[in-house]
Amino acid sequence: MQKTISIEQLSRIAALMRYYILAMTTQAGSGHPTSSLSAADLMAGLLFGGIFKYNVNNPGHPNNDRLIFSKGHASPLYYSMWAAAGILTEADLMTYRKFGSVLEGHPAVSFPYVEAATGSLGQGLSIGLGMALNARYLDKLPYRTWVLLGDSEMAEGSQWEALQLAVHYRLGNLIGILDVNRLGQRGETMYGHDTGAYARRVAVFGWEVAEIDGHSFNDILLAYEKALRATDKPMMIIAKTIKGKGVSFIEDRDGWHGKALSREQFDKAVKELPPVDKTVRGEIAQPADLHPARPLPEKPAGLAYPAGAMVPTRKAYGAALARLSPCFPRMVSLDGEVSNSTYAELFKERCPERFFEMYIAEQNMVGVALGLACRGAIPFVSTFAAFMTRAFDQIRMSRYSEGNIKFAGSHAGVSIGQDGPSQMGLEDIAMFRTILDSVVLYPADAMSTERLVEAAANHDGMVYIRTMREATPVIYQADEIFTIGGSKVLKKSAHDSAAVIGAGITLHEALAAHELLRQEGLMIRVIDAYSIKPLDERVLRDAAQDVPVIITVEDHVAQGGLGEAVRSALAGSAEPIHALAVMKKPMSGTPAELLDYEGISRKAIVEKVKELL
Amino acid sequence: MQKTISIEQLSRIAALMRYYILAMTTQAGSGHPTSSLSAADLMAGLLFGGIFKYNVNNPGHPNNDRLIFSKGHASPLYYSMWAAAGILTEADLMTYRKFGSVLEGHPAVSFPYVEAATGSLGQGLSIGLGMALNARYLDKLPYRTWVLLGDSEMAEGSQWEALQLAVHYRLGNLIGILDVNRLGQRGETMYGHDTGAYARRVAVFGWEVAEIDGHSFNDILLAYEKALRATDKPMMIIAKTIKGKGVSFIEDRDGWHGKALSREQFDKAVKELPPVDKTVRGEIAQPADLHPARPLPEKPAGLAYPAGAMVPTRKAYGAALARLSPCFPRMVSLDGEVSNSTYAELFKERCPERFFEMYIAEQNMVGVALGLACRGAIPFVSTFAAFMTRAFDQIRMSRYSEGNIKFAGSHAGVSIGQDGPSQMGLEDIAMFRTILDSVVLYPADAMSTERLVEAAANHDGMVYIRTMREATPVIYQADEIFTIGGSKVLKKSAHDSAAVIGAGITLHEALAAHELLRQEGLMIRVIDAYSIKPLDERVLRDAAQDVPVIITVEDHVAQGGLGEAVRSALAGSAEPIHALAVMKKPMSGTPAELLDYEGISRKAIVEKVKELL
Repeated sequence: MQKTISIEQLSRIAALMRYYILAMTTQAGSGHPTSSLSAADLMAGLLFGGIFKYNVNNPGHPNNDRLIFSKGHASPLYYSMWAAAGILTEADLMTYRKFGSVLEGHPAVSFPYVEAATGSLGQGLSIGLGMALNARYLDKLPYRTWVLLGDSEMAEGSQWEALQLAVHYRLGNLIGILDVNRLGQRGETMYGHDTGAYARRVAVFGWEVAEIDGHSFNDILLAYEKALRATDKPMMIIAKTIKGKGVSFIEDRDGWHGKALSREQFDKAVKELPPVDKTVRGEIAQPADLHPARPLPEKPAGLAYPAGAMVPTRKAYGAALARLSPCFPRMVSLDGEVSNSTYAELFKERCPERFFEMYIAEQNMVGVALGLACRGAIPFVSTFAAFMTRAFDQIRMSRYSEGNIKFAGSHAGVSIGQDGPSQMGLEDIAMFRTILDSVVLYPADAMSTERLVEAAANHDGMVYIRTMREATPVIYQADEIFTIGGSKVLKKSAHDSAAVIGAGITLHEALAAHELLRQEGLMIRVIDAYSIKPLDERVLRDAAQDVPVIITVEDHVAQGGLGEAVRSALAGSAEPIHALAVMKKPMSGTPAELLDYEGISRKAIVEKVKELL
Repeated sequence: MQKTISIEQLSRIAALMRYYILAMTTQAGSGHPTSSLSAADLMAGLLFGGIFKYNVNNPGHPNNDRLIFSKGHASPLYYSMWAAAGILTEADLMTYRKFGSVLEGHPAVSFPYVEAATGSLGQGLSIGLGMALNARYLDKLPYRTWVLLGDSEMAEGSQWEALQLAVHYRLGNLIGILDVNRLGQRGETMYGHDTGAYARRVAVFGWEVAEIDGHSFNDILLAYEKALRATDKPMMIIAKTIKGKGVSFIEDRDGWHGKALSREQFDKAVKELPPVDKTVRGEIAQPADLHPARPLPEKPAGLAYPAGAMVPTRKAYGAALARLSPCFPRMVSLDGEVSNSTYAELFKERCPERFFEMYIAEQNMVGVALGLACRGAIPFVSTFAAFMTRAFDQIRMSRYSEGNIKFAGSHAGVSIGQDGPSQMGLEDIAMFRTILDSVVLYPADAMSTERLVEAAANHDGMVYIRTMREATPVIYQADEIFTIGGSKVLKKSAHDSAAVIGAGITLHEALAAHELLRQEGLMIRVIDAYSIKPLDERVLRDAAQDVPVIITVEDHVAQGGLGEAVRSALAGSAEPIHALAVMKKPMSGTPAELLDYEGISRKAIVEKVKELL
C-alpha cells in the first residue's frame, strides 16, 4: 500500500512538472505550455496522490487505470508527468517534437504509456468510454478510466454523445477532469470561467459533478476520492484553472495559446516557480493484480448457403458475426441504431453481452470502438455506409492509435433504391482507402461475405467491409478461399474483348452483361475485385496483358474508388482503363432504374464494351 | 390578415394529411408512415394555424418563414402538408419515391418548397441555425425558422453543437419542434416518452422550452404563439406524440419504423381515420413583404505582393477575404475557433458583422454554412484541413442541397511540421474530390491564392481551397490569370526528361528539384496543378505527348488525391505516371525532415527522375 503523500510533496512535484513543461517547449520552440500548465496540479494530484493505479513497469497490465488526454495538445504536461514518475529523463524531454522522438507534438502510441493518439479535440471522452465499457462489461475489472478534457473542446458534439451514453451504460468507472482555464485558441470560450455553466449542463445528463479550484490539492484530492467511491454514475470534476498557471506574465492572458517561451522568457519564468528540486519523484499506486477471464476460442461452424439463394450481404455480415462469435472471444459489435438494417442484431441475439447499442451517434461509436480496441477487443462497428462519413475524423485518428477496428457499412450505392441519396454510401470506398494500410473489402455474395468477415477478424489492422441492401445470389461455394488482397476471375476465355472488373452489385451486373454479350458472340473477362485494397495486382496485370481494354464498374463515385485504385495498380502498364461510376446526382427510384441512370448497369456495361470495340 | 381557424377545421386537415401519408407510402411500397403520422398535428397546426408565414406563390420570398425537416424520413408528412395547402394533388403524391419524381424518399431540393435536403439525421438544427443567423444578423428580417426534430436524432452530437450556439447568438427566431414519439428504428430511444428529460437538457443550455401533448391542437397552438413572442432565446417545443398516431394497429408499436402498409392494411387504416374530406384545404398566413437591403458590390482593390516575398497561403486566404469583402456583399466567414491560424481573422477585422465564430464544432459549422447558403449568402468556412473530416457527412449532404459553400482547409500536409499527424490534413483532397462537381484548388503562393479565392466566390457551387502553414515565396505576378480548371507550366524545355506535377508545397519542391537537376544537365517540366479538380487536361495531355514520364508529387496520401486525379485524366494515354505521396505514418519533425521522410521533397523528386531515366 502506498504511503500517503503530503500536499507539500505534491507541490514540489508539480513545480518540477511545470519546469519540465517550460523547458521542453522552449527547447522545441513550439508546443502548448499554457494549456499544459493549467492542468499540472490536476495531473500531479491524480498520478502521485495515491489515486491513479498503474504498474509503471507494465503499461499493458489489464487492470491498470487508464488516462486519456482528450486535450492532446497538453502533451508537454503528459510527458512531464512521466518524467516526474521517473520513466523519462530531462534529456528525453529535450527531444520533444524532434524528428524521430517518441515524444511527439501530440501524444502518439510510439510512446508506450500513451493509450490512444489524441490531438483532434473532442474525441477523448468517447475513447475513455470504450475503455470503461470494457472494464465494466467485458473484462469485468475494477480499473478506472480518467479523461483530461479542455473547456473549448466541450463545444464538440461528440463529447455530448459520450456524455449521454456514459450514463446510459452506468459507467461509474469513468471520470472526466475538465480543465476550465477560460481561454480557447483565439479568445474566451463561450462560458469563460463559469464552472457552474459546465456543471449544470453535465449534471442534467445524469453525471455526478464537482466544481473545484484546480490549483488546490485539497480540492483536487477530495474530488478524486469521491470519484473512487462512484458506482453507477460517471463523474465530471470541473476544475477552475488559470491558463499558464505558475508564470505571471502568461497567466490568464489571451494570445498565449500554442506559444512557446523564448529562451529569455523561460529564464524569467523559472525564477517565478517555487525552487525546483530535480531529484523529486512521484510514486504511482499499484493496481490489484487482477486479470480478465479469457475463454478459449472455438472452431467456427460450417457455412451452408445454397447456390443461387438470394441473400443480402448485409444479412450475411450479421450471420457471420454470430457464427464467428465463439471463435473470437474478444469480438464485440457496436451499431448506430440500425442493427435491424445492418443485421448486427444477429450477433446481438447470439451474444447480447458483447453487443453495445450506440444510438444515432456515429462519432462516439468510433471513439468507443477505439477505446475497446486499445484494451484488446476486436470491435465490429456497423451503420449505413453513408453515415460512416459522420465519423471520418475519428476514423482518421484511430489509425494513429493503430486501432484494430473493423467497420461494416451497409446500404452501399444507388442500388439501395427509393430512400434516395441521403442514405446512399457513394464515397465510403474513397474515404476508407485514404487510411494508411487499411483494408477495403466489398464482397458480392453471402458466402464471400462470411469468409471475408472472418479474414477481417483475423487481420491485424483497420478493415472496412461494404455491404448491400439488395439480396444477391450466392455464387460461391463453401470450399472457396477468399483472402485480403485476393480476387476471383469468374469468366475467362481466350478471346476476351475486355476485362470487366466489378465488386458487390456491379459484379452481378458484369455477370449479366457477360451473358448478354455471349449471346451476341462477344466474350468478356469478369473479375470480382472483392478486395479493393489491397487489390489483386497480379490478376489485374494478367488481364492487362491478355485483353485490349479494362472496364471498371462501381456503385460509388468516380473519385478515389475502385476505378482509381485499378488505375493506380496498373500505373506502369499502357492498358486503357475505362471507369463506369456514379457521376450524376442520384435520386429515388428502383435499384434497376438507378443503376441504368448512373450508367453502371448490365446494359451500360454491354454498351461500353461495344463502344470500345 | 388570415382569419382564425377552428380546431375542428385543423382536425379535418390533419385527417386529410394522414390519409395522404398512408396513401402515398402504400402506393410506393416504402417510406416512413409511422414517423410521419406522429408529427401530423404538429405540422397541421404550424402551417395552417396562422403561425407559419409563407407566400406559397413565391417560395423564394426573402421574408418567408423557413421550415426544415431534420427528421427527413418524415417526407410523406412534408408532402402531405403541401397537398393540404393546395400545391400538390393526390396524383402528384402517388409519384412518391418513383424514379423522376420530385417527391423523393427524403426531401430533395428538386421540389421547390424544400429548403435543404435532409435525411442524414441530426443536421437540421444546424441548417436552421444558419437561416436564423441570416435573418437576425444579415438580412435583418423578422422571419422565423422552424425545425422539426425527431427524438432519436437528439443522440447526435451535432444537435448539441447547434443548441449551444443558438443561445450564444441569441436566436429568438429559431424554434425547434421535437417529436417525442418514443420509438427509434429498432426499439425505444434512451429517454422514451420522458419529455421532461429532453426539456431539462435543452433548457440548461439556455433555450426556452415547452412540453406539450403533440396531438392537442390547443397545446400546439399555445406553444407556437409563445414561440412567436420570443426575442433573444430560441425555443424548443417538446411534444409527446404517438408513433403511427391515427391507426390503432400501428400506434406506439416497435417494429413499424420505415414500414409501409400493405394495400389491405391501408384499407383497414383508412376506416379508422375521421371521415376524410378531400376538398378541405389549409391556408397559410402571408409574410410581411419585406426585403433585405442589398449593398452594391464594389470593384476589388489591387494586389501588391512583391515577387519572392515569403507569405503563407493561409494568410493570403484571409487577406483575400478581407480585400474582396466589398465586392461580394453576401460573403460571410465562419471559422472553427482557429481564425488566428486560418487568418479568417483578417476578414473579421474588416467586417465583423459578417464573421461568425463557430467554436470547436465543425459539423455544426458546415450545417450553418448550408443554412446561410440557402438564404443566398456566400459562406467561406475555415478550419484546419484535417478537421474538415469532422464534417464529411454535412459536406456530403450539402451537395444534395446545391449548397454554394466555399471551404478553406489550412495546415495541409506533413509540412506543418512539429504538431504531428493529428493536425495534418492528409486526406482532404480525396474527401472533397468525392463531392459531385466540386472544385478543389491548391494554390502555391499568395498571389494565386488571392485570385483563386475570388474565382471561388464567383463560382456557383462547392469549392475547397487547401492552404499551407508554411510561408512560401510569391512566384506569380499581379497580371497573371488563374482559373478553375487551369494550371501553370512554370518550367518547360525541348528536352524535358519528365514532367513533374505538383501543387502547394510540392510545387515549390518541384521548382527546387528543377534547379538541382538543371545543374546536372537534366531538364524537367514543372506544372503547377493549382486546380486539382477539375484538372487542366489539355496541359496534361500535352505533357504526356512531349515527355516520356509524368511524376505527380503531393503532400497528401496516395489514394484519391492529385496522383489518382492525374491518372484518371490521362486514362486514355499510355503515359507512365509515377506518384509520390505520403505513404508512411507521419510524426513530429521539421517540415523539411518530414518532406524528405515521406519522399515528397526536392531530393525525392530528383532521385525519382534519375531512377526513371
